[in-house]
Amino acid sequence: MSQPFLLGILGGMGPLATLDLMAKLLRATPASRDQQQIPHVAWNVPQIADRQDALAGRGPSPLPQLLHGVEQLNRVGVSHIVIACNTAHHWYDELAQHSAAPLLHIADATLAALESKPARVGLIATQGTLDAGWFQQRFATIGSTSVLPTAQELQQWFVPGSYAVKRGELRAGGELLNLQAQALLDRGAETLVLACTEVPLALDAVASPLLAQAIDPTLALAEQCAQLWLARREARI
Amino acid sequence: MSQPFLLGILGGMGPLATLDLMAKLLRATPASRDQQQIPHVAWNVPQIADRQDALAGRGPSPLPQLLHGVEQLNRVGVSHIVIACNTAHHWYDELAQHSAAPLLHIADATLAALESKPARVGLIATQGTLDAGWFQQRFATIGSTSVLPTAQELQQWFVPGSYAVKRGELRAGGELLNLQAQALLDRGAETLVLACTEVPLALDAVASPLLAQAIDPTLALAEQCAQLWLARREARI
Repeated sequence: MSQPFLLGILGGMGPLATLDLMAKLLRATPASRDQQQIPHVAWNVPQIADRQDALAGRGPSPLPQLLHGVEQLNRVGVSHIVIACNTAHHWYDELAQHSAAPLLHIADATLAALESKPARVGLIATQGTLDAGWFQQRFATIGSTSVLPTAQELQQWFVPGSYAVKRGELRAGGELLNLQAQALLDRGAETLVLACTEVPLALDAVASPLLAQAIDPTLALAEQCAQLWLARREARI
Repeated sequence: MSQPFLLGILGGMGPLATLDLMAKLLRATPASRDQQQIPHVAWNVPQIADRQDALAGRGPSPLPQLLHGVEQLNRVGVSHIVIACNTAHHWYDELAQHSAAPLLHIADATLAALESKPARVGLIATQGTLDAGWFQQRFATIGSTSVLPTAQELQQWFVPGSYAVKRGELRAGGELLNLQAQALLDRGAETLVLACTEVPLALDAVASPLLAQAIDPTLALAEQCAQLWLARREARI
């Protein structure tokens, strides 16, 4: 019959963001015992070329390492794959072409979570993700305009903030990223989309009140995975 | 030359305990950027027979599912395997026999962490782990006597406490497990070994002061893995 449900997580970008997705998967799944939780395998191998450097033309492409991870996940029989990094979705098409298991896209999950259809959505993301336009294109389909960080804001707040998180300095990162978030609200954003895995972690660490107006794409992706698993789980009863 | 370092984690018992081990791996590894972190793959599949029930003769053996996980980890080229569950070490010998990658034993890592060589060590663990005697035998090699929970204490505090954690009720679990920990100290234990992955999580949740006298085998295992990785990482420089 149908293949067993087994979620593959292409992670390591960074390794802490992978743990964050896993924790959100567990919290998104109603379970009264271990066996009801979502079965998953996480490829959490951070020895992979820097995505931001690659997209800025300053370093090698991470594609070979990403393809290796997808290949290994397929080898152990995953039924679906998610990528625990917004920026790495730049290589989504190539990865999807080389994977027997379908890849879920984090921007599709985020769109599904934007129930309020805000007129203006503030998007916090890497330059690579902003340039790619996946989020902006999807927001446009529901009539939402994207409010983006400026190049100067990225350099002043976003880039040092996200690298601080990668070093484990969550509070320092949170203070910088909170300034970035406030700037987008000041320019008219009604809802924020925190489309870099480090950002929700950092804003949590400083208990930012701006989180009340924010969507976390990692959480949206976890909720989509939980729905897929629950449909399969219930069908077996 | 030598095989690349890649740690395999046999997890899912429960899935939250696997995340706890992963978080401790990251914290145990000095790293200023993602690429310096320990590469690992986590088989976090909780659809596995209950270990406590199996050892009590009330349910099927988890061995087939454990062997499947070990097989899948070997398939993606892991160089070492750890088991993110104390009780599942009951099947350590069978798993090690069927694995090309060596399996590290959590009780060996714990012994290495017992630097103070206490005269009396309080051991909090499942009935299955207590019966197996891995920890007690190793403590005896350094002249330490084990102080164990009574059957009544297990039933009153340990079992309901650990299942509360599995349901996500960390504080409720922590209050019960704290009573268990205090009872062992009252009977003369100088150091506690929290040899069930749920226990440190739960005592953390209630900020138990008893943690100051406790060794967390999961942390000891993470530190051993980090040492192995650091030796490999430094050798490449």
